Amino acid sequence: MNKAFKALSDETRREILKLLSEKDMSAGEISDHFNMSKPSISKHLDILREAELVSSEKNGQYVIYSINTSVLQQILGGFLDFFNKNRKENNNEK
Amino acid sequence: MNKAFKALSDETRREILKLLSEKDMSAGEISDHFNMSKPSISKHLDILREAELVSSEKNGQYVIYSINTSVLQQILGGFLDFFNKNRKENNNEK
Repeated sequence: MNKAFKALSDETRREILKLLSEKDMSAGEISDHFNMSKPSISKHLDILREAELVSSEKNGQYVIYSINTSVLQQILGGFLDFFNKNRKENNNEK
Repeated sequence: MNKAFKALSDETRREILKLLSEKDMSAGEISDHFNMSKPSISKHLDILREAELVSSEKNGQYVIYSINTSVLQQILGGFLDFFNKNRKENNNEK
């Protein structure tokens, strides 16, 4: 969970997730959307992969990245649910 | 937004938010829930305050902390909504 929030604490990484929510992409295709070196993008992709927010699969000479929407939902949604549930319970007590 | 996600990338800080979702507390009351020095807790509270996830108000000799649930909802909820909306649109296209 720490890794996921840390991965999300960078705007480029959040933008990469938004791009991958449109379609799966290779590292090269992702790089084309940023004014940044390929090794930098590659490092951001590693951080997202370690946090399990994206998956990668080798396809011939390319590595194709896809977003793990369910992990994102589970972590952010699960955390938010706690506060929503708690607020409802506190309101009911009043 | 970076600050908020960074603030959330630590388990102690997520626990503090959960405590404050029950009721407002002084730094001392918060410290009582952790096996950690008061200066360490104070540092975590500063990070949460800088990220605008908590507010503090001086009340006599105490500083009382409260959670900004709306900021949490806005940041995490807003980010999640993007992916939910996007997924629905992609499904509609199929």
